[in-house]
Amino acid sequence: MNEDEFSEWYHRMLDENKIVDIRYSVKGMPVYRGMAMFIIREMQRYLEGMLEENGHEPVYFPVVIPEDTLSKEGEHIKGFEDQVYWVTHAGQNLLERKLALRPTSETSMYELFSLWVRTHNDLPLKIHESVSVYRYETKHTRPLIRSREFLWNEGHTAFATKEEALKNIEEIKVIYKKLIEGLLCIPVMVNQRPDWDKFPGAEYTIAFETLMPDGKTLQVATVHNLGQHFSKVFNITYENEKGEKNLVWQTSYGPGFGRLLAAVICVHGDEKGLVMPPKISPTQAVIIPVLFKNVDGTAIIDYVKKIEEKLASQGVRVKVDYSDEHPGAKYYKWERQGVPLRIEAGPRDLKEGKVVIVRRDTGEKKSVPLAELDLAKTFSEIEESMRTKAKKKLDERKFKVKTMQELAKHAGEGIVEAGWCGEKDCVKPIDEAGTILSISNEEHECAVCGGRGKKITVAKTY
Amino acid sequence: MNEDEFSEWYHRMLDENKIVDIRYSVKGMPVYRGMAMFIIREMQRYLEGMLEENGHEPVYFPVVIPEDTLSKEGEHIKGFEDQVYWVTHAGQNLLERKLALRPTSETSMYELFSLWVRTHNDLPLKIHESVSVYRYETKHTRPLIRSREFLWNEGHTAFATKEEALKNIEEIKVIYKKLIEGLLCIPVMVNQRPDWDKFPGAEYTIAFETLMPDGKTLQVATVHNLGQHFSKVFNITYENEKGEKNLVWQTSYGPGFGRLLAAVICVHGDEKGLVMPPKISPTQAVIIPVLFKNVDGTAIIDYVKKIEEKLASQGVRVKVDYSDEHPGAKYYKWERQGVPLRIEAGPRDLKEGKVVIVRRDTGEKKSVPLAELDLAKTFSEIEESMRTKAKKKLDERKFKVKTMQELAKHAGEGIVEAGWCGEKDCVKPIDEAGTILSISNEEHECAVCGGRGKKITVAKTY
Repeated sequence: MNEDEFSEWYHRMLDENKIVDIRYSVKGMPVYRGMAMFIIREMQRYLEGMLEENGHEPVYFPVVIPEDTLSKEGEHIKGFEDQVYWVTHAGQNLLERKLALRPTSETSMYELFSLWVRTHNDLPLKIHESVSVYRYETKHTRPLIRSREFLWNEGHTAFATKEEALKNIEEIKVIYKKLIEGLLCIPVMVNQRPDWDKFPGAEYTIAFETLMPDGKTLQVATVHNLGQHFSKVFNITYENEKGEKNLVWQTSYGPGFGRLLAAVICVHGDEKGLVMPPKISPTQAVIIPVLFKNVDGTAIIDYVKKIEEKLASQGVRVKVDYSDEHPGAKYYKWERQGVPLRIEAGPRDLKEGKVVIVRRDTGEKKSVPLAELDLAKTFSEIEESMRTKAKKKLDERKFKVKTMQELAKHAGEGIVEAGWCGEKDCVKPIDEAGTILSISNEEHECAVCGGRGKKITVAKTY
Repeated sequence: MNEDEFSEWYHRMLDENKIVDIRYSVKGMPVYRGMAMFIIREMQRYLEGMLEENGHEPVYFPVVIPEDTLSKEGEHIKGFEDQVYWVTHAGQNLLERKLALRPTSETSMYELFSLWVRTHNDLPLKIHESVSVYRYETKHTRPLIRSREFLWNEGHTAFATKEEALKNIEEIKVIYKKLIEGLLCIPVMVNQRPDWDKFPGAEYTIAFETLMPDGKTLQVATVHNLGQHFSKVFNITYENEKGEKNLVWQTSYGPGFGRLLAAVICVHGDEKGLVMPPKISPTQAVIIPVLFKNVDGTAIIDYVKKIEEKLASQGVRVKVDYSDEHPGAKYYKWERQGVPLRIEAGPRDLKEGKVVIVRRDTGEKKSVPLAELDLAKTFSEIEESMRTKAKKKLDERKFKVKTMQELAKHAGEGIVEAGWCGEKDCVKPIDEAGTILSISNEEHECAVCGGRGKKITVAKTY
C-alpha cells in the first residue's frame, strides 16, 4: 500500500469498526469508542498483571504538575515546555501557580519519592499507573498514532544501585515483549536511540518499534535509564547499612496503548478489514446458523445454542448472528471486525454432529466434530501463525545498503541498515532520508563519505 | 467517636496503610497509593462488568471540554462555572478557546450523541467511562471525601421513550446497590434530592448515601433523570418507524470511587484499624507460622507452605508472614490492615492436621482441620456479618422527631426523620441544623410551625 491508500484504509477501519471518533471538537483529541476501550483494557490488564507480579505497585498521581516542580530538571522542562497545556484559572480565579497537564509523570512522582525513600529498606521502589498524558503536538496529528491526549501506562523506579536499575531495564524489556509479541502478535525491534533523540533528562532511551504497511516505523514503547539526573534535583536519597546517604538510581518506561492498538490494526489487517489476535478480540468466535428457506430451522437453532453453550463454558467470548441478513453479508460483517473464528452450522453439520470453522487470518476452512471442538488450541495456532506472518512481512522490508542513494531509496520502504562515520556533515543527508533509529558498535562504511563508521538503522517514522 | 477523634483516626488509617498521601504540592489533590488503587480497581472491574452485562459500552472521552460546549445547557454551566479548571495556554501559545477540565462529561458526550443517534436503531445508547473529574472545591477538602480531582465511573444514556429511561434508572439502582451493599458490605439509603439540590440540568437527582461514624452522611453515588434538557440543546434526535423526528430521553449517573473507599474505611473500621470486606482486600488471608525458640521450625514451615498452596489453589490472595517479629506484633500489623482472616499454624496444629483461623471482623477464633479448609464459605459469612453489623449501626442512628429542638439535637448524630410544611420561612432553621436529604409524599407535621407538611429526612452531610 502506498501512503494515501494506507491512510484511506486506516481511517475506514477506525470508522467502520467504531474504534475512534475524530469528530470531537478539540483537535487531536479523538473519542475512544467501545472496540478501542475493550482492546486497550485487555492490554492494560495483561500489562498491569505482569508489572505487579514483578513487584510494581499501582498508584494514581494527580493530572496537574505545578510549574516549579515540572521545571526542576533542566533538560526535562526544555524538552517538554513547548508541548505543555497550562491550567491557569479555576472558576473566576487566576491560580497563584500555573499547573501543567502531565506530559509524563517523572517530576510529580519524584517529588514524593524523596519523601517515600528514607533507608535501603524502602528500596527498590517500583510503581506504575495507567493514565492519560497530554502533549500539544505541533506535527500533523493522526488518531491513535499522534494525539494530543493519549492513554498509556508509565512505570517508575528507584534502586540502591546502578546494577539493579540495569537489571530492571532487562526485566521490562521482557515484559514489553510479552505484551507486544506475545499478546498482540506484533514483531518489535528494540533500538537504543542516538543521544540526541533520548528522553529529556535520561542517560539513554531504548525504543520499541514496529513497521507499518506504508514502510514507516511506529514507536510503541520506550524505556529510559534516568541514572541519577532526577534523584539529584529531587534529592531522593537513602541511608545504607553503614548510615551513609546515597542518591538512588532510576528508570522510567511506558508503552502507548493507542499506538499499540494502531499497530494491531495495521500490522494484522488486510483488504477485508481487521484481523484480531484472539486474546484481545471483543468477540472471539461468531456462530452463523445456516438456514434454508422453506425448511424448519428449529433444530439448527437448538444446535447453534448447544455450540454457543459449549464455547461459553470454555471461556470463549462467543456471539451468534441471528440476523436475517444474507449469509454473505454476515461473513463480510464479521470478517471486517476481525473476529478470529467463524463457525457455520447447517443441516448437514447437524446431521453429522459437526461444525465448519473458518479462520479469519488464513481463510482456512475445516469441518470438526462438535465433541472435539476446543478453541484454545485453535486460538494459539492462530496466534502463532499471525506472529510468523507479521515477522515475515517485517523481515522482507529490511534492507542492507552501502550507498546514500540506496539508503534514500529504501528509507521510505522499511528499515535500512547502513553506515555512518559520526560526522555532522554526513548526518544531514541521512536525516533528510529518514530518522536514525539506532547506532550500533559494529563497524560499517559511512554511506555518505565512505569513511570508517558504525552500523546504523534508518527509517521514516511516525 | 466525636468529630475530632474521627478525623484523627481517619487520617491515621490513610497514612499507616499507605492509602493516600496528602503531601503532593497541589492542594486538594492527593496521591493514591497501592492499597487505594488495588481496592478501587476491584470496585471498578466489578461495576464495569455489571454495566457491560447491562448493555453499556466502555468509552473514553477527552479530559477537556471547550467553553462553548460546556456552556450550552444554561443550568448546567451555572452549576459548574465556579468550580471549573481552565486550560488557557499550550506551550507558549494562548489557545483560541478556553478548555475546561471535565467536571462531568454530559456536554462533551452529548455533542457526539447528536452524531451517533440517527434512527431508532441506534437506541438505546448506553456508555460508561472510568475517569478522573475536576472540581475546584472551595469548601474544606478532605482526602477521598472531598478532593479537587476524583476518580469515578460515569454512565450516560439516550432512549427513545421516557419509560425506558425510567426503567434504566431502576436497573442502575440495582447495580449500584450490588456494588455498595453487595461487594462493599455498606448499607445505603436512596434519597430523591429536593428540587433545589438536584444536578444542574437534571429533572431530578437520586442520591445514594451512607452514614459515617461521626454522624454525618456521605453521598457516594448519584443518578440523574435528565429528561430532554440536554437532548434539546444538543439536538439529539432519532427518526422513528414512521419517519418522525423525536428528541431522546436521557439519564446519567456515577459513583465516586474515592468516597466509596472512604466509606469502606470508616463504616467497617474499628479502633484496631481497617476491617476489609474479603472480596476487595489486597490480602485476604495471612498465615502466621507459630515457631518456638530452640525448636526446629522446618516442619512448621513445610506445613505453612502446604496451607498457602491449598489457599492459593482456591483463588485466595494469601500471604505468609515469615518476618522475625514477635507474634503479637504480627497480629497487630495485619489487623491494622484489615486482612479478613489470620491463620495460625504451630506444632500442635501440625500434629493434629489442623489450623487456627481468626476472623478480623469479630475476633472469633476456631480450629479447623486443614482438609476441610474452604475459605469461600468463611468469606461469605464474614461479608454477611459485616453487612448486618453495619446495618445495625446505621439503624441505631435513625431518629424520628416531631420538634425543631429534637431535629437540631439529632441532626449531627445521624439521620433524622421530621416534617416540613414546604414554606420558605420554615426551611431556614432546618437548613441551619442540617441538610434536607429527601422530601417524601407521606404526611408529617412541620417541625417548625406545626402545620401540615411532608416527611423529610435531614442530616449533617460531608
